[in-house]
Amino acid sequence: MLKQVIVVRGDLDLPVGKLASQVAHASLEAALRADETRDAWRESGAEKIVVRCSDASSLSTLHGECDRLDIPCYLVRDAGHTVVEPGTATALGVGPAPEGVVDDVTGGVELV
Amino acid sequence: MLKQVIVVRGDLDLPVGKLASQVAHASLEAALRADETRDAWRESGAEKIVVRCSDASSLSTLHGECDRLDIPCYLVRDAGHTVVEPGTATALGVGPAPEGVVDDVTGGVELV
Repeated sequence: MLKQVIVVRGDLDLPVGKLASQVAHASLEAALRADETRDAWRESGAEKIVVRCSDASSLSTLHGECDRLDIPCYLVRDAGHTVVEPGTATALGVGPAPEGVVDDVTGGVELV
Repeated sequence: MLKQVIVVRGDLDLPVGKLASQVAHASLEAALRADETRDAWRESGAEKIVVRCSDASSLSTLHGECDRLDIPCYLVRDAGHTVVEPGTATALGVGPAPEGVVDDVTGGVELV
């Protein structure tokens, strides 16, 4: 079973539309980096789970774990025209990858 | 200027995480259908705007307009295991496509 988890920063209190666009950005860019699993994942329903982390530091730790485990991922840094400062890390797309591998990274993060 | 608009149904009152995953699904699948504009759009910042429509009928009308204008698009029908009935249309990804073309379809829809 393949899945993708998108982690967003809960501490930024993003408005709903802004949060959704950051999640979409992370999801799309991570998926485009998953050449080996993308189509199989889409054909099996393209499961996407959105969870919330506490702050920039925890997002950065999760990003490092993805790199260490060689999981396709993408960290969104917002251009910052409106809601947050330029360059603010807002969301991380993890996978698509095998469920167990994704859970190794994101298993401890709260559900939105 | 290229952009993508994702329209979600406001009347379903989806929880934030569910809404964000539906938006991500619509965004990704519409982008994967936009072979001619996807990379140029991503290189120019991959603008994604999330807006809300009133009900299933208005989402369906917007979907029809996309087809009529031959704009890359994707209508999400949720598998419905949890929050909504199976097959419920929840979100529509419009574009990436030239801004004016997207606005012709989505210009009258409320911002989330």
